[in-house]
Order: sequence, then structure tokens, then C-alpha cells
Amino acid sequence: MENKKVTEEKKIVRIKNIEIGSGKPVFMAGPCSIESEEHILEEAKALKEIGVDILRGGAFKPRTSPFDFQGLGMEGLEYFRKAADAVDLPFVTEVLSESDIEKMEEYVDMFQVGSRNMYNYALLKKLGKVNKPILLKRGFSATIKEWAMAAEYIAMGGNENIVFCERGIRSFSDYTRNTLDLAGAVLLKNMTGRPVIVDPSHGTGLRELIEPMTDASIACGLDGVIIEVHQCPDEALSDGKQTIDYETYRKIRNKY
Amino acid sequence: MENKKVTEEKKIVRIKNIEIGSGKPVFMAGPCSIESEEHILEEAKALKEIGVDILRGGAFKPRTSPFDFQGLGMEGLEYFRKAADAVDLPFVTEVLSESDIEKMEEYVDMFQVGSRNMYNYALLKKLGKVNKPILLKRGFSATIKEWAMAAEYIAMGGNENIVFCERGIRSFSDYTRNTLDLAGAVLLKNMTGRPVIVDPSHGTGLRELIEPMTDASIACGLDGVIIEVHQCPDEALSDGKQTIDYETYRKIRNKY
Amino acid sequence: MENKKVTEEKKIVRIKNIEIGSGKPVFMAGPCSIESEEHILEEAKALKEIGVDILRGGAFKPRTSPFDFQGLGMEGLEYFRKAADAVDLPFVTEVLSESDIEKMEEYVDMFQVGSRNMYNYALLKKLGKVNKPILLKRGFSATIKEWAMAAEYIAMGGNENIVFCERGIRSFSDYTRNTLDLAGAVLLKNMTGRPVIVDPSHGTGLRELIEPMTDASIACGLDGVIIEVHQCPDEALSDGKQTIDYETYRKIRNKY
Amino acid sequence: MENKKVTEEKKIVRIKNIEIGSGKPVFMAGPCSIESEEHILEEAKALKEIGVDILRGGAFKPRTSPFDFQGLGMEGLEYFRKAADAVDLPFVTEVLSESDIEKMEEYVDMFQVGSRNMYNYALLKKLGKVNKPILLKRGFSATIKEWAMAAEYIAMGGNENIVFCERGIRSFSDYTRNTLDLAGAVLLKNMTGRPVIVDPSHGTGLRELIEPMTDASIACGLDGVIIEVHQCPDEALSDGKQTIDYETYRKIRNKY
Repeated sequence: MENKKVTEEKKIVRIKNIEIGSGKPVFMAGPCSIESEEHILEEAKALKEIGVDILRGGAFKPRTSPFDFQGLGMEGLEYFRKAADAVDLPFVTEVLSESDIEKMEEYVDMFQVGSRNMYNYALLKKLGKVNKPILLKRGFSATIKEWAMAAEYIAMGGNENIVFCERGIRSFSDYTRNTLDLAGAVLLKNMTGRPVIVDPSHGTGLRELIEPMTDASIACGLDGVIIEVHQCPDEALSDGKQTIDYETYRKIRNKY
Repeated sequence: MENKKVTEEKKIVRIKNIEIGSGKPVFMAGPCSIESEEHILEEAKALKEIGVDILRGGAFKPRTSPFDFQGLGMEGLEYFRKAADAVDLPFVTEVLSESDIEKMEEYVDMFQVGSRNMYNYALLKKLGKVNKPILLKRGFSATIKEWAMAAEYIAMGGNENIVFCERGIRSFSDYTRNTLDLAGAVLLKNMTGRPVIVDPSHGTGLRELIEPMTDASIACGLDGVIIEVHQCPDEALSDGKQTIDYETYRKIRNKY
Repeated sequence: MENKKVTEEKKIVRIKNIEIGSGKPVFMAGPCSIESEEHILEEAKALKEIGVDILRGGAFKPRTSPFDFQGLGMEGLEYFRKAADAVDLPFVTEVLSESDIEKMEEYVDMFQVGSRNMYNYALLKKLGKVNKPILLKRGFSATIKEWAMAAEYIAMGGNENIVFCERGIRSFSDYTRNTLDLAGAVLLKNMTGRPVIVDPSHGTGLRELIEPMTDASIACGLDGVIIEVHQCPDEALSDGKQTIDYETYRKIRNKY
Repeated sequence: MENKKVTEEKKIVRIKNIEIGSGKPVFMAGPCSIESEEHILEEAKALKEIGVDILRGGAFKPRTSPFDFQGLGMEGLEYFRKAADAVDLPFVTEVLSESDIEKMEEYVDMFQVGSRNMYNYALLKKLGKVNKPILLKRGFSATIKEWAMAAEYIAMGGNENIVFCERGIRSFSDYTRNTLDLAGAVLLKNMTGRPVIVDPSHGTGLRELIEPMTDASIACGLDGVIIEVHQCPDEALSDGKQTIDYETYRKIRNKY
């Protein structure tokens, strides 16, 4: 990566009729966690009505403490599949374990590798054999080279359907949860030719920064955003402070 | 700053007929250093023709090593004043010492406090007594609170004409020179009501990121940019790698 | 972890006749990678003669690039087992995948979880069911709470034989490979009561800092060190710059 | 600094009969701020009785907010001079402004440049003309090169009596106030030959880490420590959480 060559080729990733990396920004939205069958269906319907390309939501939740809520697991995925089908939308969800891939594969449209697992090369290698696109989040303090190379662990297995997701890096900052590195995201896109989207929810940790950071991300040529939306953010089981409600999401979505 | 209250009042800063913080993005541009009388005049003319609101350029250069070129000093300021007058534009330049303020004041239109001096409270206090606006760059690893409070050291002397400049923070990143913190810049603007501009040259250290980061900065509502431009970037006495040429600057400028 | 309570109980970890956390510093040493059957046997003999408590060496190597040398794998482990048995010493080696645990278990004396996998909760949970002690390295930018909680993912499976290893965190520093956080290591030891050792090789990346950082680690009450030693550091297949030779290791070892 | 050459020459700094950098660790101790004439005298007497080489205390306090207590100023220095003379000890205190140097010079034994002013080259240059030793603290996120070069701004004026002080750098860590970089401190000492001491009070922000970090600093060959001590830490006007009481200081001091 010493030679920061710019790749001209655009590596567009397709999920059903959605194209990521084609120039038109893609919106992924949904709750942090799938909370119940009714909850995820309601969210799916609301987001469909407002406008969303891909639903997001966690069934397997990586939590700092093993004693915290760990998600609904496979049961949650079943609910999510039903909800997504009901509104005819694809969804992305996080995979935490090599041994979950096979059983998850029949439910999900896109696998997310979270920040905690960006260096989990065993997981990445197995995802290289899967016939579903991968959303590869940046590790908490991953360099651009490490992030680009993590994608190669997937690609060398044959799966070239990789979308990067910038979600903020760890810095001394204590005002925002993380420091959103849009310049790094643009650099990675230029170097790899792969699509790069932005997660302004985790990237800032602050509800009021989601709209300006979405605008910034799209203005500098990145390929979309993934946003935490909840019918009632302050009652969300996790990540409430960085989650927006439907009206705020509608306002952002309608701009594009 | 515990209460992240949003200030509704817009504190617009005026330099001659230029308004910073009014909603219309302001462009500051020029070379890193004033290299000679001819050089700065040529730069001023070229930038005037392309379109610029405020010229920038350093006469007193803070260098990591005391053995490196330290700038032309007061002689450089005289050249800059003449050049700026020749094209009828204001200019901003950095002040490094409390004892230089008085003699600089008759030449400059706006004082810049660089990252190295953001915590130099003696300097800030003296600039609070000056009748010229101040461009206050963020310290290398200054928190949002420290940055906001540095402005108060100026304001309490009576000078409320303060423009903040986000120029990237230090992180583990080694691909970009610094990590541009646009989210932090928006947060500061919301909290203080003061204008905030962005320096994508120092903020990224890479020429090719200046256009996308300018676009991002303006899209998220910040008040302008300050860009290093040089007739021949690779021959600039300092900061060549992050400096753009006239044609690149024209391309960016013409968008707005 | 809000209440930084100090645990009085000392949780000593035993590997054969070695006690980690008893007050006497433990020395782990060996090459970065197992390079061949002869190489690891020679290393084991040399280190035994100089004095070492636990051998270290990698068979499964997590490399940033998938195109770099990935280690000898199970073959390497067989060599390591033979070499360790020949000199009657236990050894520690890194595990990269949930699916490798079972086959590795009959060879290794202690499993190492590397920095890249500190957040790999699926791996940690499986290691909680293993009857071997775990060396848990700190993630590149893991907070003290995240690190302490990663151990709980292991402990909740029943395996309480956990030793933490501080190996430096990512900061802006470019002189040392990482920034060794001895204060954080002491804090963790006080909070959890578990043993904490230090890796001055990765923690600094510089050969000449290994002796002073070993001295500092032991002086502040930490439980030992893990050091990269190679018969010919400049010819090591990986990490040569931070590897010391036998004579340097002997000098350090003889102090304690 | 590209060539990390090791300087063999030891540049010992002398203050009265104290030698810094001679191999014997030097203890500097005292309150964060001079609070009153009685307070500083009482502190001086107590510390003299326990054992201290150089007293420390702030008269000019650099505070993040201009609205916080800024120290007693020159009045505080008069009290400190009297107290120090009463117990026949030298003292070090911080200078914040170029224009204070001259009037401070007749009172102080050693000038401290704080982290906020490490890049204040105008201040450093003036201190190069002063006939008193300088304690140069590391900037919040200063690289080793920047720190070493800041000393050259002083030295080129003729004042070679420079002692560096490592006081922790800014990282993502939120458990300790800063991340104490002992490896960086050793590196700087090796490169410059100048004495380097450690401030475990600011370096950790936590009282209970002062003793282990003092032990670590001395064990790795650094030249001493500067510690915040107060008769009643919880009533100190500033920095109480990182301040130790007399008994704790006595316990540490008696070890050496």
C-alpha cells in the first residue's frame, strides 16, 4: 500500500436490485437490536414507507460485558427475515462466530463484520466462501492498510462482494464517541475501488451529528450511510443516544 | 461545557466586506510561506483572478526544528501587505509571539493563532485587546472544551471577532498527516455560535483529499476553508505535498 | 468497573510447576515464529540454558496481509511440542480460530489470544471450556474495562486460569511501535487480582528498550515479561527489529 | 533525529548542590498551587523533613477556563521564595508568558515550561537567555522529535541546563488521565544525553498509581520524579485526585 495508486475500476456490489458504489448513495437503516417479532416488523414497515435501501439490525450483539443483553440470536434472525420479506427489502446483520455462518446464510442478505472482528482472519476467510456480500466495518484503531488487507482475506476466498464501512476511530476525543475519519474513507475508496459507506451513528455517538455527517459523507463521494433509527430512541435496548427517530430520518432521507 | 447547549445566535465575523459565518462559505487561500516580494504578489494576483475571499501566507513560521527556515518575518509582512493591497484583498497570517503583536497589527487584517499556540494563554489574552479578528486553530490534540475555552481567553479581553479553524487532530493514523474531525467542528459551531472553517491541507496532508474534504466541510454547514495553494507546489519551500496548484484550486473554487 | 475497587485476592495461575502472579516474576521467551524443527529445538535448548520459565513461539501467525507467511500451522506445533519436551519446559502459542482449539489442545500448555482477537468473543467463550490457561493480550486500543471484560467471557465458561498481557496501545507515537501502558497494566491488576505480564518487544518495537521496560515492569509489581528472542534477530522471519539475541536476553535474565 | 544515535555524554544539570542526571534519582515535590503564605511554608517544612531535593508549586496556573482560579501570581512567588529559603531548598515553578520571565527570574531557581507551552517557541527562545535551568514538560501529544527539538530552541540561546519531564500523552484511555510513556522517555534520554524525569501525578491522574510509576521510572534509569503532594489532598484547590498526602510521599521517598 506504499504506492497509493488510485484504482480506476469501480467494484460495484449488488444486493437484489440495489447497487452499492454506482454513484447513487445507498441508505441502510434500522434499529441497533432486533427486540421482538412485532418490533422489527413495525420498524421495517415504517422505514419502507420513509425510504430505505437495506434494513439493518442486530440479532447477535457483541457486548463489552458478557453479562449484558446479547441479542435474540437465530430467533431474532427469523423475525428479521419475515419482516424484511413483508416489505420486500434486503437486510444486513452482524455475524460473530465462524460457526454461525452456515446457519445464518439462509436468512441474511448481507453479512456484517463488526469492528471487533475486523482482525478475525478465521472469520474473514470463511466469509470468503459465502455467496453473500459482506459489510466490513473498520476496527477501532485499524490503519487504512490493515482495513484494506482485511478485505483481501475475504476476497482471496472468491467473494469479491465487499463494502467497507467507516464508523469512527478511537482518539483522545471525549465529546464524540469516536472520531469519524471521512478523509481515510475517501483514501480507501480511491485505493481499492470498492464501495465505502459511513456509519454516522457509531461514528459520532450523538444524534444531532447524524444529519451533518450524512451530508458530508455523500458530498465527498462516499457510497452511502448506515443509520440507527428507532421508533422511540430513548427506549431502545441499546445505543439510544446515537439513534434517531422516524421524523429525523425522514428529513435526512428526503434530501437525497 | 457539560451542558451541550446549542447557541442560536450566529456570531458573524466581518473583515472588510467579507462575512464569515453568514451561511455563504468563505475561501481563504495562499502559499504556506511568503517566499519573496515577487512570489507573494504573483500568488495574490493569480488567486484574485480565480476567486478568493482572504489571502493566507506565513511570515513567521513555527518550525519543529530551530534550524529550519523560520520565515521572512516583518519583511515578509511588508511584501504581503503590498501584494494584498495591489489586488484589494484582506489577508491572514500567523503570530508567534506576544511581543510581535503590536508591530504586526498595522500590517495584518486577521491574526492567526496556530495549533502550537492554542494553549498560549498569554498570547490569547493580548489578542483580546487587538482590534482585528482572530483565526484560532485547534491544538494538535485539543478537546472541544479546551478549544472553545481558548476562544474565551480572547473574548474576555473584548475581542469577539473569533473564527475557529479545524485542522485535524493527532491519531494513530499514518496515511493522512492528521485526522480531520468534521463532527467535532460541527459540534463546536453548535455550542458556541461562532464561525468554524476547515483547513483540509493540514487536516489531511494529501493534495488529493483537499477537494473531497472541502466538499464535505461545506456540505455539513461549516463556514469555509483555508487551503494551501502554490504556483508550483513541488517547489514550495514548505508543505508541498499538501499544496495544490492553481488549476486544482480553480476547479474547487468554481463549484461554489 | 465504575467503582475501581481493589481486589485483595491474588488469582495465581499455575502451569506445571510455574506460578504466575505469586510475586516472583515469570520469564516467557522465544522466537516470533517457529521456523523449522531444528530452529525451535535450538532455541529451546539455548533458552533453557540461559533460564526461562515458559517458551513462546507462533505456529499460526496473524499477518496484516493474507499474502505474507502465515506460520507452519499444526506442523509447527508438533515441532514445538517435541522441542519443549526435550528441554522439559511448557510453551505458549497463539490460537487464531475457534475451529483450531480442539486439535491444538493436545499440544499446547497455554493458549495465547492475540491483540487482534481480544474482542473475538466466540473464541473467548470456547476457551472458557478448555482445561489450559489463557494468555490474553490487550487489543490495540482496548480500554481497561474492555480488557477486563474480555477475561470474563473466558471465565464465565469455567476457565479461571487467565493471565493478562500488556503489549502497548496505539497512539500518535511513531518512534516506538506502540505505547507501553504500564500504569494501565497496574490498574488492571489491582482491579481484577489476576496476573498481568508485559510484552516489551511488541510494546516498544525497539530492541534497545526491552531491558529498561522489563526492569520498569518488574519494579512496578507486574508479574513477568514475554520477550522475543532469536539466535540471530536480523535473520528472523518476522519482527527482527524488536527481537533480542541470546546475550542480551542473558543479561536481562540474570538480573532476576 | 532520523538516526537514533545514542549520545554517550551525560549532560548533568545542577541546581545549587543538586545534580540531575548523575545517576541518583532526584525528588521534586510540592502542591499543585501555592494557596497562601502559610500554606506553602507549611508544605515546605513538611517536605524538607520527609526528604525532597527541589520544591514545586504553581503561582501562575494555566487553566483550561479563563474563569477558573489562575494562581496567586507574583505574590505567590514571593511566598514561595520565603518558604524555600526558610528550609534551604530550591524550587521550580511554571512560567506562562514571555513578559513574566524577567520579573520571575530573581525569585525562581528553575523555570518550568508546561505542556501547553512546549511549542511556544517565543517563550523557549527567551528562556535560552536566562541563567536558570529549565524543566521542559512534554506537550500533550508531542512526538519525541518535537520534544527534543523544543529543547534546541532553548539551547541555541546558550542555556544548556535543560531537564525533560515526561507527563503522559493523550490517548483514547479514559481510566488514567494520560498515558505515561516511559519507553519514549528512555528513548529521549538515550538520544539527547539530557536528564529526563517523570511526573506520575499528571501522567496517571490517579493517586494509587504514583508509587508504582515512581518505582518503574527509577528502575528504567530515568533521573527522578516530580510529585504533587498536599497536606490534605482532598482539600487542594486543584488536582486533588492525583495528589498524595505526606504519609504516602514518605513511604515512596524512604525507598530511595
